[in-house]
Amino acid sequence: MKIWANSGDSHLVEPDDLFTTSLPSSLAARMPRSVKDPDGSHETLFIDGQEIRRRMPRAAGLKDENGHTVVERAPGANDKKLRLVDLDQEGIWAELVYPSIGIWMSSIQDPMLLAAGCAAINDWAFEYQRFDPRYVCTATIPLLDAEHAVAEIHRVADVGFKAAYFSVTPGLGAPDWHYEMWEPVWATIAETGLVIAFHIGTEAHDATTMHGAYFRGPGGALINYTETTYGGQRAVTKMIASGVFDRHPSIKVVVSEGGATWGPFIADRLDEGYRQHWSMVRPQLSRLPSEYLYENVYASFQHDRSAVKAMTAMGWRNICWGSDYPHIEGTFGHTQKTLHELFDDVDPVSMRRITIGAFEELFPHVPAAPANESPAAG
Amino acid sequence: MKIWANSGDSHLVEPDDLFTTSLPSSLAARMPRSVKDPDGSHETLFIDGQEIRRRMPRAAGLKDENGHTVVERAPGANDKKLRLVDLDQEGIWAELVYPSIGIWMSSIQDPMLLAAGCAAINDWAFEYQRFDPRYVCTATIPLLDAEHAVAEIHRVADVGFKAAYFSVTPGLGAPDWHYEMWEPVWATIAETGLVIAFHIGTEAHDATTMHGAYFRGPGGALINYTETTYGGQRAVTKMIASGVFDRHPSIKVVVSEGGATWGPFIADRLDEGYRQHWSMVRPQLSRLPSEYLYENVYASFQHDRSAVKAMTAMGWRNICWGSDYPHIEGTFGHTQKTLHELFDDVDPVSMRRITIGAFEELFPHVPAAPANESPAAG
Repeated sequence: MKIWANSGDSHLVEPDDLFTTSLPSSLAARMPRSVKDPDGSHETLFIDGQEIRRRMPRAAGLKDENGHTVVERAPGANDKKLRLVDLDQEGIWAELVYPSIGIWMSSIQDPMLLAAGCAAINDWAFEYQRFDPRYVCTATIPLLDAEHAVAEIHRVADVGFKAAYFSVTPGLGAPDWHYEMWEPVWATIAETGLVIAFHIGTEAHDATTMHGAYFRGPGGALINYTETTYGGQRAVTKMIASGVFDRHPSIKVVVSEGGATWGPFIADRLDEGYRQHWSMVRPQLSRLPSEYLYENVYASFQHDRSAVKAMTAMGWRNICWGSDYPHIEGTFGHTQKTLHELFDDVDPVSMRRITIGAFEELFPHVPAAPANESPAAG
Repeated sequence: MKIWANSGDSHLVEPDDLFTTSLPSSLAARMPRSVKDPDGSHETLFIDGQEIRRRMPRAAGLKDENGHTVVERAPGANDKKLRLVDLDQEGIWAELVYPSIGIWMSSIQDPMLLAAGCAAINDWAFEYQRFDPRYVCTATIPLLDAEHAVAEIHRVADVGFKAAYFSVTPGLGAPDWHYEMWEPVWATIAETGLVIAFHIGTEAHDATTMHGAYFRGPGGALINYTETTYGGQRAVTKMIASGVFDRHPSIKVVVSEGGATWGPFIADRLDEGYRQHWSMVRPQLSRLPSEYLYENVYASFQHDRSAVKAMTAMGWRNICWGSDYPHIEGTFGHTQKTLHELFDDVDPVSMRRITIGAFEELFPHVPAAPANESPAAG
């Protein structure tokens, strides 16, 4: 049986000439670009007049088991039409599609330059959504201040975006998500109905530092990978603890690529802190923290075997599967194998909820997926 | 029915005169002590010649729902005999008993002074274990360097300790758990058979900084409480990723007060990182990371409703319940209510494993708990 699933975590890979073809040359010249050394060991970053020389991030060299880079393994990923062929073959129906986060977003310190860059990437990304409603593209929001964020949220909502990509921490130097400065942003999200889409591994960082290199030494890559999962949990914790969902009960948030079993876990931890340290908790909330997590928050996972049980045994219904297409760590090439391993022993209602239903609840405009019995549409 | 449970998380509260009565005056004078302002707003810390003035930590003012501090609510906690009366009344059989972590451990930078302080607290704590085998006291290990740690582990194992308290990060300035410097410590733990007992919220920190105040602003207390849960997960991640359990398969680790649902979650995240980023992972491990977590790692939780399902639905058998007695956030006064809420709908085998069995597996020398049907022993 071919299983069809919506993906709560997919990516576009921005073309190299995105900014030069879309922005006035005075702005394009200030946007981040990387010039790699011929031997591939170092790169020089040019960002708004700065010149930063650094070792190539190791992640840039990620290859799959056949030695292919992201672009080599899925050449259709950045072709609106060929991409659908890949999706049909894999059994992926609709996708929540993030940009492939480069260094650029948190490296730009000029709010106006950042806003122009976000608008350019959004206009480019929306061509996908316009091409086929199976692409649910996330609009990249400039998050150095509330004013530019609010303006871009309004602009992209008017265009037809249904989701707003937020990094797990705001722009470098900006107050964190639990501060009042962001209240106009939450109000605008509630007003427009956009889903907030957090993607793990997107903490704001300076271009001079190597992103995600929290730890070095033996086991460093595995320790760092595991560390990235906490960022999404933190962002959600800050929103719940500061009362965002209390003030705006309609806001929906999805955390992509961070697994899903953390939902019931963090819900319990929040309730423990809320009840057992009650005398220090400000603001008081009108409901238990776990209720916001169970209702307002969603998560997308790829392979995690315990994630399905977070719904079937622990009752968190807001779990989506995700492919991470076309990234190396995603399921491209083995999507059906992964889906069968995850769901062959799961009751049909729970399987439907995780593969299709939770995503449809977030994005009801998406056309219905084919039935699992039918062959792939051409 | 009265439910009896072993506790994987309990505490002693050190008497104020612990160091002056146990150490030579030249050493005692250098140990940390706090002098509080009459109005309770600030304190002055004296540590090895330093004088540090700071606001009183808010946690010091924690009170229960009746307005009682830790010492007021459970006056028997530091009386070997009266404590047993409390335990009998609550239905707590054996306890893994930690010190009540003060600021002192990570504030001492002289390895010899730290070793002397640890030895003093261990000699005092062992009087409890000697008094009754229901007290399984953790020996506090000096963790600024491997040499002193190894020496104290040998000393306390010879005395009869069965567990070694490790802070979730090593002493301030020391290399982290995944570095080779700690190999003699793991070897000594394996040789002596002591269980490593991590307690969350014990990151090394300088006395001039407020411990645990990672975030301020709206929701800060709840955000900080939630943040403390990650430290135990990180410590375990570092041990697994650097191959500690590969080299020493007999080592057992318990993480106390951090919930338990994180076990299956982090196991999945580790496997995801290990498989999907395989080309960057050093060292390679002889088994999947999740296998070490499921076999070598245990966790103790208090109220978390999803924790039981981490065993019954997700298959992680190494879950203990814990009381956190006599701390404010613990179950003292409502232990039976908590145990019934957690276990009334759980099959007897799983309930037995979580309340009794996992703890007995770690500490087989502890006498058997009374049957749940029998009245409390006097």
